[in-house]
Amino acid sequence: MPDAQRFALVATFAKNVPQNAALGIRVVSVAAGGCLFELPYADFLVGNPDSGVIHGGAITTLLDGVSGSAVFAAVEKLQPIATLDLRIDYMRPAEPHRAVIAHAVCYHMSKNVAFTRAVAYHHRPDDPIANAVGTFMLGTKSGRST
Amino acid sequence: MPDAQRFALVATFAKNVPQNAALGIRVVSVAAGGCLFELPYADFLVGNPDSGVIHGGAITTLLDGVSGSAVFAAVEKLQPIATLDLRIDYMRPAEPHRAVIAHAVCYHMSKNVAFTRAVAYHHRPDDPIANAVGTFMLGTKSGRST
Amino acid sequence: MPDAQRFALVATFAKNVPQNAALGIRVVSVAAGGCLFELPYADFLVGNPDSGVIHGGAITTLLDGVSGSAVFAAVEKLQPIATLDLRIDYMRPAEPHRAVIAHAVCYHMSKNVAFTRAVAYHHRPDDPIANAVGTFMLGTKSGRST
Amino acid sequence: MPDAQRFALVATFAKNVPQNAALGIRVVSVAAGGCLFELPYADFLVGNPDSGVIHGGAITTLLDGVSGSAVFAAVEKLQPIATLDLRIDYMRPAEPHRAVIAHAVCYHMSKNVAFTRAVAYHHRPDDPIANAVGTFMLGTKSGRST
Repeated sequence: MPDAQRFALVATFAKNVPQNAALGIRVVSVAAGGCLFELPYADFLVGNPDSGVIHGGAITTLLDGVSGSAVFAAVEKLQPIATLDLRIDYMRPAEPHRAVIAHAVCYHMSKNVAFTRAVAYHHRPDDPIANAVGTFMLGTKSGRST
Repeated sequence: MPDAQRFALVATFAKNVPQNAALGIRVVSVAAGGCLFELPYADFLVGNPDSGVIHGGAITTLLDGVSGSAVFAAVEKLQPIATLDLRIDYMRPAEPHRAVIAHAVCYHMSKNVAFTRAVAYHHRPDDPIANAVGTFMLGTKSGRST
Repeated sequence: MPDAQRFALVATFAKNVPQNAALGIRVVSVAAGGCLFELPYADFLVGNPDSGVIHGGAITTLLDGVSGSAVFAAVEKLQPIATLDLRIDYMRPAEPHRAVIAHAVCYHMSKNVAFTRAVAYHHRPDDPIANAVGTFMLGTKSGRST
Repeated sequence: MPDAQRFALVATFAKNVPQNAALGIRVVSVAAGGCLFELPYADFLVGNPDSGVIHGGAITTLLDGVSGSAVFAAVEKLQPIATLDLRIDYMRPAEPHRAVIAHAVCYHMSKNVAFTRAVAYHHRPDDPIANAVGTFMLGTKSGRST
């Protein structure tokens, strides 16, 4: 399958994942160099009505989704992958009324395992809201089904 | 605030978090000894139509939500908490047509930091689908807003 | 190879790992149900002369070592394993002049991946100094060589 | 205390940590922009005599040590810090007869918490042997004593 076709399939799949669709996550781009998702600010995402800050779980969902897509974008042919583990570090709360961007790359792939890195931010990746690292099994049914 | 009242508030809050509500997550119990959430099986959660297996991100959302609630259930008075980090390990995919249960405890609390442990499973915690460990700052605005 | 013979081999191997030997780590037991290592208190381990508290890296080394041995103790036949990742959470400093005990189990094994959990403590595992979770690839050269 | 003086103190401290000294870890540089440590190859570090590959725990020790130093190098005045957690992902075994380099930065600091990122490699950071992320409490006795 040509890359462009695979990227389009990954984007369509990601859009239709229930967690992504429910939060209004937009798939901005899927490419060999990584994936970019956007979470537009919305009142229904707010966890703390006093501060207007969105619930942190929305950032988790965003980073989880974009990391899995980065693996699909990096494998040469579409195959089942399974998340082995995911770790998310939170630097600071997202700011009210601003979209959150998340970028993920699959930065290393061994025979069976893919490694991802992702960052969530408002404007610049070097001023992060949160970082994530993850590992995924390729072509296997171990771990979770992504 | 009496414990029972705080537990009821935590349960109400958790039910209304957008990610939880969107996936149909049920708050089964909130108590000093931990929290129990349930994710009923539903067709719209399925990530892989061939296998009927729900999308792994739903497990992430479930474990993330129940872990934060476990901290709120463990603190003596309600206060802002912020997730510092969360790690999730996936042992195996959830099985089709079965609810996923998640149990979380806040197993240690130092002056500023709470530590959680959570497990997702179908029937028995010792046959896990996934495990999570997390750390949360108490009474601070560092990290993410939960 | 009979279990008892494999356990003895694992114990001998662990004792001779340079990091373990250098810190004076004792291999107390290796068994199917898990491994128990001990780090006796020693002046040369102290990181902070004012408090007499041992350097935290010694706890890392202890938990890392006991986790890998737990996988070797759990596999049916000796084979190369490779650490995929390891996460350590620290609850509190070790207390001066007390040995640190570490217990690890391999609590789940899928076809290719083993999952471990370990705890470091003075007297009781439910009053931990630190917890660790890890994943290991079986029979492969991915990841680090353990 | 001037930066240069603090960096020199951090380097001296790191050299004298028992785990570092025992493995022959060299403190190459300590600076505001990060720390660089080197683990020279040595026969006594070998975990697998057949392959000549050094024991993976040596990489853990190296990344643990350089991450803590990166926090000391980044704080404005020397103060107690405590590791909250550390996660290490292993991409591949180190190669025989080659030194392992580790570089760590403290990439974010909130009021109470410092966040680190580190990479171990032979020649180029973008061809990593292992990556680590960690969090540290500042000026507190929670967590482990570093």
